[in-house]
Amino acid sequence: MQKLYNDAATMVDESIAGFVKCYKDQVAHTDCARTLRYIQAPVQGKVGIVSGGGAGHDPAFMGYIGKNMLDAVAIGNIFMPPSVESFYTAFKTADSGKGVVCLYGNYPKDIESVQEAVKLAKKDGIIVKTVVANEDVANSNPKQRRGMTGEVLLWKIGGAAASLGYGLDDVVKASKKALSRMRTIGIGLASCTIPEVGRPNYVIELGTMEIGVGHHGFSSMDTCKLKSADATADIMVDEILKDMPLKEGDKAAVMISGLGNTMISEMNILYSRVFDVLTERKIDIHHSFIGNYFTSLDMMGVTLTVMNLDDELTRLLDLPAYPVALNDFAYSNHNDRLG
Amino acid sequence: MQKLYNDAATMVDESIAGFVKCYKDQVAHTDCARTLRYIQAPVQGKVGIVSGGGAGHDPAFMGYIGKNMLDAVAIGNIFMPPSVESFYTAFKTADSGKGVVCLYGNYPKDIESVQEAVKLAKKDGIIVKTVVANEDVANSNPKQRRGMTGEVLLWKIGGAAASLGYGLDDVVKASKKALSRMRTIGIGLASCTIPEVGRPNYVIELGTMEIGVGHHGFSSMDTCKLKSADATADIMVDEILKDMPLKEGDKAAVMISGLGNTMISEMNILYSRVFDVLTERKIDIHHSFIGNYFTSLDMMGVTLTVMNLDDELTRLLDLPAYPVALNDFAYSNHNDRLG
Repeated sequence: MQKLYNDAATMVDESIAGFVKCYKDQVAHTDCARTLRYIQAPVQGKVGIVSGGGAGHDPAFMGYIGKNMLDAVAIGNIFMPPSVESFYTAFKTADSGKGVVCLYGNYPKDIESVQEAVKLAKKDGIIVKTVVANEDVANSNPKQRRGMTGEVLLWKIGGAAASLGYGLDDVVKASKKALSRMRTIGIGLASCTIPEVGRPNYVIELGTMEIGVGHHGFSSMDTCKLKSADATADIMVDEILKDMPLKEGDKAAVMISGLGNTMISEMNILYSRVFDVLTERKIDIHHSFIGNYFTSLDMMGVTLTVMNLDDELTRLLDLPAYPVALNDFAYSNHNDRLG
Repeated sequence: MQKLYNDAATMVDESIAGFVKCYKDQVAHTDCARTLRYIQAPVQGKVGIVSGGGAGHDPAFMGYIGKNMLDAVAIGNIFMPPSVESFYTAFKTADSGKGVVCLYGNYPKDIESVQEAVKLAKKDGIIVKTVVANEDVANSNPKQRRGMTGEVLLWKIGGAAASLGYGLDDVVKASKKALSRMRTIGIGLASCTIPEVGRPNYVIELGTMEIGVGHHGFSSMDTCKLKSADATADIMVDEILKDMPLKEGDKAAVMISGLGNTMISEMNILYSRVFDVLTERKIDIHHSFIGNYFTSLDMMGVTLTVMNLDDELTRLLDLPAYPVALNDFAYSNHNDRLG
């Protein structure tokens, strides 16, 4: 395995250490080694926003800590759920007395950890509400749908709502609305390697691709011949619009995220087609994101997320946020960026 | 080859098209298909800043177009020099009457194109001065040293100088100073695949690594057994400090860039060690950058760039710039990012 690390068993902790050294004005350690907090958390007078999940999804989750976004995150081992303690510490860290909203993905073991941590927090008098992301279209049963890259937009919306002074229930309401109005689909071209395992954790045959692949590489809808970027974009847009129809005049946010080993050029090419298809349908693309927002180690592939924006979601998405992993250029055209 | 594209022969043009569709408020096409400009270029009253080079280095070069950075870029085919016409168009596009500085890498064919384009511009009455980046330490002959990731910092410095009202000669002077005070070293763990070729363009044996590898994967100083992240960081810092000694109290900017298929986690781990080593030597790390700033297609590996900052370079680096590829958080702790 051609990777830069010291010890596969301590890789996550060492990555966290380097991250905090680099961004020490932005993030800080907590009492729990697998919980990081925004340097200003708890932000007084604001509902706390927490997320978390397994490592291996750079720059998630810790890259999204920051003003107007996440106040604390819980970090598991690679592709493994964070511990109860990790979420519990995150809740305590994020709470300023206004309660906490935990926005995280629909993975059974993550849910178990969160639910236990919510109980512990309750004993401390901290109210934690949860919203479980399940915007992946790759399962016909919505209850089994996974949280995918759309989580980034969910954190953006929930974080903005909290910063704009929404109360606990209203942050939950806005987050749920965002979730109900977005869909993600993933495409896999090559598997990833979990460092502790040291070999690809499943097989995608050369010349084929997986449609509807998840963030851990499993459970795709279909395996097919490797298609052109345009044909791939068409499939992705179709699957999303089949599940969440958009009509002429609708306003959308579009996010294309690489899964690790996919070049920005490839994403640009894919975006070009998505842009053309949506523009032809007279969908107004209000925000676009192209980059590695939520990866799966060194997997080859991409995800496409589309959010159908109403006025409230537009306002929340427009509010600048300042985590390490987002370039605010992408979602807000500040005048000071030009001239 | 597991890549998302339509046609290897048109991949660069299709990527440019998608990029412009996504960032149409920031960048625009010009008369030349391989020249992109900042939407506001030429910026009146300011020296124009141009760069360019072969494609395959996402997010370079076009990702660095923006306020206080690049006004126009020339784009070649993958790992190939831009045409004379492409640079010539960039010069004309960037010039507001104050002249243009072209900051680019030390590659013979790029130099040929630039020199021809400078002559054409001169006939139009446009004065173009050039600064050739050669901060790569992997060659004992400084004249043969290549431009590497440090080019990003060079554009940052030159762009800031121009925006702060420096005249043509002073922009050149500040850029040359930046260059003389920075060094880069690259490490390769696996080769990249040029899409038009379809197979790895050289071989790095499993279990080995290349010390001092270039941005196209060639001409390393040494091939050795794959080392731990800490041992790798030590070698990289040593090679840089051997060539450019830093003393206690010096102030530095540090940039770790992935070469494509290297995880942010790996870079965090490497950074952790670089931070410790420099801190132990009482070097003040003023700015740090960790990310994919200048890649080599899907190569596995990283570069480390260190710049020895004086007061002027600190001021120039501190000025926020707003290209797509830089998160301004990384180099300037604006107060509005906290709270």
